[in-house]
Amino acid sequence: MALAGALVAVGLAAAGGAQELSLLPWPASVEARAGELAIREPPRVASAARCGARVERAARRIEARLARQTGLPLPSPRPAGRPALDVTCGSPGEPLPHVGMDEGYTLTVSPEGARLEAAEPWGALRGLETFAQLVEPGGSSAFRVRAVRIEDRPRFPWRGLMIDASRLFVPVEALERTLEGMAAVKLNVLHWRLTGDEGFRLESRRHPELHRLGSDGLYYTQAQVAAVVAYAADRGIRVVPEVDTPGPVASWLASHPELGAGPGSERTGRDGGALGAALDPSKEEVYRFLDGLLGEVADLFPDAYLHAGVDETRRASWEASERLLGFRKERGLQDDRALLAYFTRRVSGIVAGHGRRLIGGEGVLEPGLPKGTVFHSRRAAGALAAGTGLGYLAIESGGFSLDRMWPASHYYASDAPGERLPEAAGARVLGGEATVRAALPTPASLDSRLWPRAAAIAERLWSPGEVADVDDLYERLDAVGFALEWLGLEHRSGYERALQRLAGRQHEALRTLADVVEPAEAPEPPSLAPQALLGLAGAVPPESGVARAFGRQVEALLADPGRPGARDAIRARLREWQGLDNRLLPLLESRELLRECVPLAAEASAVAARGLAALECVGEGKGESCRRARAPGREPGPVCGLVVAYRPAVERLVEAAAGR
Amino acid sequence: MALAGALVAVGLAAAGGAQELSLLPWPASVEARAGELAIREPPRVASAARCGARVERAARRIEARLARQTGLPLPSPRPAGRPALDVTCGSPGEPLPHVGMDEGYTLTVSPEGARLEAAEPWGALRGLETFAQLVEPGGSSAFRVRAVRIEDRPRFPWRGLMIDASRLFVPVEALERTLEGMAAVKLNVLHWRLTGDEGFRLESRRHPELHRLGSDGLYYTQAQVAAVVAYAADRGIRVVPEVDTPGPVASWLASHPELGAGPGSERTGRDGGALGAALDPSKEEVYRFLDGLLGEVADLFPDAYLHAGVDETRRASWEASERLLGFRKERGLQDDRALLAYFTRRVSGIVAGHGRRLIGGEGVLEPGLPKGTVFHSRRAAGALAAGTGLGYLAIESGGFSLDRMWPASHYYASDAPGERLPEAAGARVLGGEATVRAALPTPASLDSRLWPRAAAIAERLWSPGEVADVDDLYERLDAVGFALEWLGLEHRSGYERALQRLAGRQHEALRTLADVVEPAEAPEPPSLAPQALLGLAGAVPPESGVARAFGRQVEALLADPGRPGARDAIRARLREWQGLDNRLLPLLESRELLRECVPLAAEASAVAARGLAALECVGEGKGESCRRARAPGREPGPVCGLVVAYRPAVERLVEAAAGR
Repeated sequence: MALAGALVAVGLAAAGGAQELSLLPWPASVEARAGELAIREPPRVASAARCGARVERAARRIEARLARQTGLPLPSPRPAGRPALDVTCGSPGEPLPHVGMDEGYTLTVSPEGARLEAAEPWGALRGLETFAQLVEPGGSSAFRVRAVRIEDRPRFPWRGLMIDASRLFVPVEALERTLEGMAAVKLNVLHWRLTGDEGFRLESRRHPELHRLGSDGLYYTQAQVAAVVAYAADRGIRVVPEVDTPGPVASWLASHPELGAGPGSERTGRDGGALGAALDPSKEEVYRFLDGLLGEVADLFPDAYLHAGVDETRRASWEASERLLGFRKERGLQDDRALLAYFTRRVSGIVAGHGRRLIGGEGVLEPGLPKGTVFHSRRAAGALAAGTGLGYLAIESGGFSLDRMWPASHYYASDAPGERLPEAAGARVLGGEATVRAALPTPASLDSRLWPRAAAIAERLWSPGEVADVDDLYERLDAVGFALEWLGLEHRSGYERALQRLAGRQHEALRTLADVVEPAEAPEPPSLAPQALLGLAGAVPPESGVARAFGRQVEALLADPGRPGARDAIRARLREWQGLDNRLLPLLESRELLRECVPLAAEASAVAARGLAALECVGEGKGESCRRARAPGREPGPVCGLVVAYRPAVERLVEAAAGR
Repeated sequence: MALAGALVAVGLAAAGGAQELSLLPWPASVEARAGELAIREPPRVASAARCGARVERAARRIEARLARQTGLPLPSPRPAGRPALDVTCGSPGEPLPHVGMDEGYTLTVSPEGARLEAAEPWGALRGLETFAQLVEPGGSSAFRVRAVRIEDRPRFPWRGLMIDASRLFVPVEALERTLEGMAAVKLNVLHWRLTGDEGFRLESRRHPELHRLGSDGLYYTQAQVAAVVAYAADRGIRVVPEVDTPGPVASWLASHPELGAGPGSERTGRDGGALGAALDPSKEEVYRFLDGLLGEVADLFPDAYLHAGVDETRRASWEASERLLGFRKERGLQDDRALLAYFTRRVSGIVAGHGRRLIGGEGVLEPGLPKGTVFHSRRAAGALAAGTGLGYLAIESGGFSLDRMWPASHYYASDAPGERLPEAAGARVLGGEATVRAALPTPASLDSRLWPRAAAIAERLWSPGEVADVDDLYERLDAVGFALEWLGLEHRSGYERALQRLAGRQHEALRTLADVVEPAEAPEPPSLAPQALLGLAGAVPPESGVARAFGRQVEALLADPGRPGARDAIRARLREWQGLDNRLLPLLESRELLRECVPLAAEASAVAARGLAALECVGEGKGESCRRARAPGREPGPVCGLVVAYRPAVERLVEAAAGR
């Protein structure tokens, strides 16, 4: 942690080097102390009885993880001595995770041992993850934990990840490893979208035709849902279900066309919903149906909140309905927005009837709903003001769409939710949620879409606002990205495998290109067809670490052009990239899935050539050739969904060559 | 496959380029044909009813694997059309895998589809793996299978892998992924050592004190054993249990000291057996006990063979026993070898009484045992002659110890088992077994100890003797090594994780050294303490691919010293390695587990410097400086268990500089 703010830096700077702790999210307060706790065998964790069975299970998991991660053999028989970490809790807390749970903890590590104190078990769970992140290769022992005192608590109580399982069915084991990753970075809400146009993914016992006809056979049984909810609760994570109403509902109408508005139902499938299928708000049977279905949902999901969609998407089926025109006139509802508000009030009543609070989109931006209603802002960040202005609570996802393919730094630099609101309104902002809504081609793609970028959002939602150093974030993301693989996530190993899948024996050659390109920024909501992701665009991670490192090399050169070796290193890189085109052309042309990337390699070579020309002019005017290098670079659109990731660094060189 | 022999090359050379198929083991006959089968969706496999449920399950597994491996989304609903592969069987075959099973198959691929024909389901299982290996990135479709006709059958019926679970307890899930890997390369025997000094790993219901007191709690329940046997049988793999008698048995004597010879029992544990604990062959109760125990083993393992140890290890407890001295005199047994022969005859009778055939070491090298007895040669390769000379069957492991840390090329160049025996004796050689007997620090270490080197042994045991091109082997090992990771094996991804474990955020720096060193050749039986494997020696794979590629660069230069660019590339490599010492010293010195490798980095730099000096002299005498370069290089022993892997290539340069 490079001096992220007075709050965290003082103690660390004093300790000289302790700032390199790989903590993520960074705690509210970190005070380095002298010495270290030596780890010579897999550390044992003892949790006090008051912390309960949940913390006890978490302690066993952390022990097993650290045994794996350190590779230290378990001594046999296990010596009885003192555990490395003692966990105590002030009270046993509520039985299930909830919005008000106390996640604060204090972790003190000395050469004699570590002590984790929490008011409630939720804080103990968070502190255990912090302890695991502190274990590192040691100076005078195999591993160690540096002496430290950490006082920590989250900035926001709602730190979520939304996964759309309607488009991409995510198998339970993928959800479970995602939950492991979430727990590791202290996210505490899995927002699980279960229905939509593409699939009705929840087993309904009351209406089994919904999942039978509304899915391609891929849906969650009620037993699976219960298992996921329990798995999450064990890690202090709430599960909030989303059942979208009044649309998109193409998958519902496959079995219940009578619930739809306008010109009838459509078959489920990836192309469903093209007609803007939606429930008909004028039919009482729709509300009776919803009452039954949402009752089932409430029985499955113990969380206090239920997301019912109600967003402002244009609904062609409403616009086309004569019946709705009449209904609106009869009720004095001026437009579809008013119709949505009417529908939302009805749904809010149903949700309340089942003891739940409604979460929704623009539909809730009307006065008169219960106080605990939550506005979920998924578009412009400014919308939060509207929801909180009405006295409702709010959560923010506008800046946190992982489908946009922004770099971690972009999410990290987003305003924290509600940051610019007046204090009273800001206090109603519960937090935010990262979102993945794209139809990925396989569940394996989910890992690289999520990690490690979701960890940057997790830090924005947990850590104090002063924690904002981007370079430092990337250092810690690298370490934590690795640690996540120990939990079974495959964002790193999956990359290698994806290249092998595309290039067979020539995967290492393909990697030289793949390492320096990035997916182009994508629109929201995501429109990219899964087919496009079968090629290179689906293989490369959202950010190029190589290009990022190169950018830093360039900045260092520009700051000190006389620095020995700096120019040589950059030149060597650029020469290598200049040759990409020639080296990769035969491979790219010979594979159907790579062929559309042929111009990308050409572009990569051209950008490198431009950088080489500029490099020779940096710090010393060289006449005609330098003037040519200063001509503005072309800014072509993405090729096969990808852009050359070192272009911005090259443009910096070109600017510098021009003396700007 | 680069022209491995007339047998396989003719058809391929004709097809121009088809020789690059990533098949391993290489089939008995491969005939390339025109065209290819396009794979645009995950291929469907249909198996005929006569092939039975086992092949049907294998077909579903291959479908799932290819879906994962191609990343192609499953169309929904699945179109009914023709499957990509049709499997037929001549007969349903025996219910369980056995030594005489017919593993031959014919696989024909045309642009219209693929057809797999086998006399028995076992051949169908092997052919399915071949088909999976043929799926590759496509020219005019996303993936393809090139048109080909393969006729295939194994050279040896016994192609095994021996895992010692007494020293290293291998969890069931690690055994299962190992079985997946074995099936992929057509190995067909898992030889499972269950008892020894360090642990009695098998639940005994008759004598539960054996596993309770004889293990550290890590043992296989009978239900787990049954599951492993079934998992293996599903893949056409036999499971042969090994229960070592008359020793090592320190773990038995923890609960049954009365069975031991000489000065009493010892506690189980890694240091057990130091006194050469062994059963007392003079006590009738020992044979009654063995009858009960081996009866339990026979009930659990349906295979016809049972390995009972009986090897010639020196048994200090026998030598020290007054009672045995008297017993030998009484029976006219001249020495301990004769005593072992006596014991073996008794055990052979017990094994036969349970309907099994005895496998054993030197104890079976005595006349008078049943014809079907198998001699397992684990030491010098020449020993096979003794066993087969007595009319027994034999299997070879002498040249196939993976613990020796030899490169794949070494195992590959070993004589095939029995190759040099007279024909009649050679016909009694059933095959061979790769062995892993070392006490690895964690189950995760098993993967890199096994893969991909075990695949080279698998090819030696399956493929015709003419298949022997080492460069070609390595090309295919790279591809197959990757494919094995799709099955859940972690020999590649585990390497990255191990470096991260040792170096934290500096794992990439450490990799520059780790990539060019190799574990030193190890003794057999392995004596390396697991503690030593916690450091760099436990992290690096048995072979350095980087050093191997460098060696080929050097050979290419020496073959044509004027080749443009060749010298520059070698110089760049050597300069990078020359800097290893300076670059890595701070890291190596700062970590306890790396500190002993400090001289290794120095050595790596020194070898590179020597190579640089020699490089300038290659092809052109340059006076004094060249003469100095020609001085013989030091040959230091391993440092921290490792050697510099590019040293042999540098020595080639030095020789060439000297004009040799």
